[in-house]
Amino acid sequence: MALIVQKYGGTSVGNLERIKNVAAKVLKRQQAGDQVVVVVSAMAGETNKLIKLALELNELPDLREYDALISTGENVSCALMAIAIHSLGGKARSLCAYQVPIVTHGVYKDGRIKSIETRLIQKLLKQGNVVIVAGFQGVDEEGNIHTLGRGGSDTTAVALAAALKADLCEIYTDVDGIYTADPNICPNARKLEKISYDEVMELASLGAKVLMIRSVELAKNYNVKLAVLSSMVDLPGTLVIKGDKEMEKTVVSGVAYDKNECKVTVSRVPDQPGVAATLFKGLGESHIVVDMIVQNVSDQGYTDLTFTVRKEDLPRARKLAEEASRKLLAGEIRIDPNVAKVSVVGVGMRSAAGVAAKMFAALGRAGINIQAISTSEIKLSCLIDAKYTELAVRELHGAFELAKGPSALKPRKRARR
Amino acid sequence: MALIVQKYGGTSVGNLERIKNVAAKVLKRQQAGDQVVVVVSAMAGETNKLIKLALELNELPDLREYDALISTGENVSCALMAIAIHSLGGKARSLCAYQVPIVTHGVYKDGRIKSIETRLIQKLLKQGNVVIVAGFQGVDEEGNIHTLGRGGSDTTAVALAAALKADLCEIYTDVDGIYTADPNICPNARKLEKISYDEVMELASLGAKVLMIRSVELAKNYNVKLAVLSSMVDLPGTLVIKGDKEMEKTVVSGVAYDKNECKVTVSRVPDQPGVAATLFKGLGESHIVVDMIVQNVSDQGYTDLTFTVRKEDLPRARKLAEEASRKLLAGEIRIDPNVAKVSVVGVGMRSAAGVAAKMFAALGRAGINIQAISTSEIKLSCLIDAKYTELAVRELHGAFELAKGPSALKPRKRARR
Repeated sequence: MALIVQKYGGTSVGNLERIKNVAAKVLKRQQAGDQVVVVVSAMAGETNKLIKLALELNELPDLREYDALISTGENVSCALMAIAIHSLGGKARSLCAYQVPIVTHGVYKDGRIKSIETRLIQKLLKQGNVVIVAGFQGVDEEGNIHTLGRGGSDTTAVALAAALKADLCEIYTDVDGIYTADPNICPNARKLEKISYDEVMELASLGAKVLMIRSVELAKNYNVKLAVLSSMVDLPGTLVIKGDKEMEKTVVSGVAYDKNECKVTVSRVPDQPGVAATLFKGLGESHIVVDMIVQNVSDQGYTDLTFTVRKEDLPRARKLAEEASRKLLAGEIRIDPNVAKVSVVGVGMRSAAGVAAKMFAALGRAGINIQAISTSEIKLSCLIDAKYTELAVRELHGAFELAKGPSALKPRKRARR
Repeated sequence: MALIVQKYGGTSVGNLERIKNVAAKVLKRQQAGDQVVVVVSAMAGETNKLIKLALELNELPDLREYDALISTGENVSCALMAIAIHSLGGKARSLCAYQVPIVTHGVYKDGRIKSIETRLIQKLLKQGNVVIVAGFQGVDEEGNIHTLGRGGSDTTAVALAAALKADLCEIYTDVDGIYTADPNICPNARKLEKISYDEVMELASLGAKVLMIRSVELAKNYNVKLAVLSSMVDLPGTLVIKGDKEMEKTVVSGVAYDKNECKVTVSRVPDQPGVAATLFKGLGESHIVVDMIVQNVSDQGYTDLTFTVRKEDLPRARKLAEEASRKLLAGEIRIDPNVAKVSVVGVGMRSAAGVAAKMFAALGRAGINIQAISTSEIKLSCLIDAKYTELAVRELHGAFELAKGPSALKPRKRARR
C-alpha cells in the first residue's frame, strides 16, 4: 500500500464532467490499494473571475481581503470533488487550509508553508477516505488566509507529500509530461521518462511552464518523488527525481525559450570601476531581476552596458537606467523588447565539453545572431532576435539529437565548455 | 456611540455597484459615530448556482460537503465588501465563521448557533474597523462548516447582535419595511412604524416573507431590537420590538396570505374515537406539518375529515391518507390544491371582541366561501378558494381599516372572538 498525493490543476477540474472523471480516477487508485490525498485548484477561470471583481472595486485591493477572496475557488472545487466521489460510492472528505491546518507565514499573496498538521488527514485516510485538500491556501497563526503565489496548488501538494512522507506526488496538468522542447513549436519533441529536480528548475526559470520552481525546490529539499502526468489521458508521465549516474550521461535534456525578456542598453558609459555598481544597485533595490549582462570592449574610455529584465519590469528599469545615466554622464538608453532567450539544459553539462560550441554553431548555421550569453552549471542561454525563437528551438533540438534520446556527446570529467 | 449590526441580503450585494453603495452607507454610519458590524449574504443567485452544481453531481449530496460548498458564496461577498470599504478610504476586516468563531451544533444544512466569541470583533471595532461577517455559516467544534438553514444570514445578524449586546440590528432587504399587507396586491397597504416580535413571527408563518421566523424568535429571546429597512432607498423602516401597551390597542396589525397549502379530504370516515389519531399519527411521524383540520358533523356514523398540508408534502401526505383510509375502511381521498389561507394578525386580538365576526362578514360580502378556520391567540386564518386570494386580502385590509392606521375596534378585556 502506497500513500499518494495527487494534484489536479484548474483545467483538470474545469467542469463537472472533468470533476467526475478525476473522481473515478482517484477511486480506481484507491481501490487498487493506495491511500490517496487529492489537492485541487479552482475550476479553470474561477480565480481570474474573482481577481477581476476585486480589481474592479479597487486597483490595489487590500491583500488580506484579496487572499480571502481568491482562495474561495479552491473551496468550491474541493467540496465538489468530495461530492463527486460520494456519487460514485466512495468515501471522501474535503478540507480547507484551516481545517488541516496548513500554517503559513510571510506576506499575503505569497505565503510560505510553515507547517502542516497531518493528524486529521492520517485519521481520515485510515477510515478509508479519500482526503481532498484545497490547494493554493494556508492560514497564519491568527487564522487569516494566505495564498501561496503562482503555482500554489503544486506547492500545497508537494508540501503535503513531504509532511505525510508520501511515496509519490503526482501533478496532473493539461500536458502529459515534460518534453525535450515545447511540442507546439518542435513537433519531434520527446517526452522525458525522467528528469532531475535541478533540470526542471532551470527549465522553469527559462520559460518552460510545466512546474513552478518553488514546488520543485521544495520537492528537492524534502526528496519528494514527483510525477508530471495528464489528467485527460492514461499515459505514463515524467518522473522528477534526484539526478543519478545514468541521467548525467545525458548532456542536454531539453531546450527552453522565454519571450518575456527585454534588452536595455546604456550607451557611452565611462569605463571606470564602480560604474556598473551604480546602475545595478538601483535595480536590485527595486527588486528588479537582471538576467543577462553584457559589457562591450572599451572604446576610448567608454563602453556600452547591456542587460535584460522581465517585460513587466521594463518601465521601472528604464527609469532607473535613465537616472543612472544622468548621474554617470553616460549616453542614451536604448530599449529592445524584440528579443528572446533560448537555452539548453542538462545535468550532464557539468562534466561535458563542447556544448557551447555546438550551440553557437547550430545558431550560426541558421543565421541567428547571438546578442548575449549566460551560463550556469547546467544551462547555457543565448539572447537572440525574437522572430527566430521557434527556428532556434528546432535547430538546437536537432543539433543535440534530443528526438533520439540521450545526446551523442560523450561526457568527460571537469571539461570546459 | 451605538453598536449596530447590519445585515445585507443577496439582492443588496447583488453586483459590484450595489456593494459599493452598501459600503458607502456603512461608512457614513461609522463616520456618524457608530460602531458597525456588517453581515452579508452571498451575491444574489450565487448560492443557487452552487446548489445546482452539487445536485448535478449527486441528487442527494453528502450534507457536510454540501454545506462546505454553498457557504463559499458568503466568503466572496464578505471579502468584496471589505475591499469596497477600503476603496472608499475606510478600515474594514472580513471574517468567516471559523475566524470569529461562530460555533454551531446540530445537523448540517440547519445548524444552530451555540456560541459566538466576540473578542476578535470587539478588538477590530476598537481599532476603528467595520467588521464584515459572513452570514449563513458556522463551524462545529471540529471546524466543519454548517449552514444555518433558510434566512440563515438574518440569524447570524441577530445572534451577533445578541452576543455583542448591540443597540440595534438592522436587516436590509429589497423591501423597505413590514406592511399591513403585501403592497403588490394591496395598493393602499401601509408601512408599519413598529410591530411586535409575536406578530412578525405569525406573519412569517402565515406566508409573509420579510423575516424568517427563527431569527425573530432569537431576537425576541435575547430582546434584540430589530429594524427592517431597504438598502436601496434611505427611508425609515419598521421596528420590531417587544409588544407594548400602545401596540396592543391595535387589534389587527396586518393581513397575510399563503398559497402554498393543499386541502386533503378523507371521506366516509367511521365516526369513532381514535380514528383521527390513526391518520394524524402517521403524518406526524413523517414530519408532515398539518395546519388546519376540519371534521364535518357526523352523518349516520360517518364523517369527512379535511386537513391542509404544505404543497411539497402532498405526495407523501396523500400516500399516508390512502393507507389510513384502507385501514379505517373509509372512503376516497379528495385533493384540492387550489386553496389559499388568508389571515389577520394582531397582538390586540388577545383582548378584542368581534374580530372573527368582522372577518367572516367581510369575506361573505365579497362572496368568498370559508372552507376551514384556524385560530391562535393573535391570529385568525380562513382557507378559501385560491382564486379569491388577492380579493380577500384587499377586503380584509379594508374591513379592518388598516390603510388608516390602528383598527377602529375597541379593545376589551378577556373578550371572546
